[in-house]
Amino acid sequence: MKVNEVTWSEEEQRIAKAAFQKAYQRETDALVQNMKDYASSVTDIDDIWRLHDFLSAKRHDIDGKYGNYDYGAVLFIFSRFVKDGWLTLEDLEGLETSKISKVSVLARM
Amino acid sequence: MKVNEVTWSEEEQRIAKAAFQKAYQRETDALVQNMKDYASSVTDIDDIWRLHDFLSAKRHDIDGKYGNYDYGAVLFIFSRFVKDGWLTLEDLEGLETSKISKVSVLARM
Repeated sequence: MKVNEVTWSEEEQRIAKAAFQKAYQRETDALVQNMKDYASSVTDIDDIWRLHDFLSAKRHDIDGKYGNYDYGAVLFIFSRFVKDGWLTLEDLEGLETSKISKVSVLARM
Repeated sequence: MKVNEVTWSEEEQRIAKAAFQKAYQRETDALVQNMKDYASSVTDIDDIWRLHDFLSAKRHDIDGKYGNYDYGAVLFIFSRFVKDGWLTLEDLEGLETSKISKVSVLARM
């Protein structure tokens, strides 16, 4: 498969998909836990509306990041996951070194 | 004060405002408690999105009901509070009997 002049072997596609899924699982698990922690501290309706605003933004963000799986953008997306702490470069082990380097550089930008 | 051919004495206005505030407090207190109970049962991200959908609808509903305080509509609004359990007819004690009767009839519709 060749998209945007980056070639992905079948093995790399498998690794990339697994990493994508891992980031999603970690980010959503963290959101579930944060929401439960926040809920225990809620005392009035303004706290509820703050939670609602937070979830609206988070949902938009998560839908945007995980809604499309596109090999043309996946290195950029992975760099964001790394930056946000949902993936480490180790999770990408098995991809070509040049791909991992790109993710690493983008994550530091 | 005379709006829509219904007259409100100053004392009635005070009672109506207090009842309105009481309904708001009861409904929002219940929402806070329900949200906390729900949060403790959340296990995955789909539960979070269900909560988000619920809060979106609830916020729209509460903003609509409590966002405008209008003597032309207040008997109708009170009837809805009574129907939903946020007010009792006793909370309206001190209003003219004809007003309480209207609220009572509307609440049964």
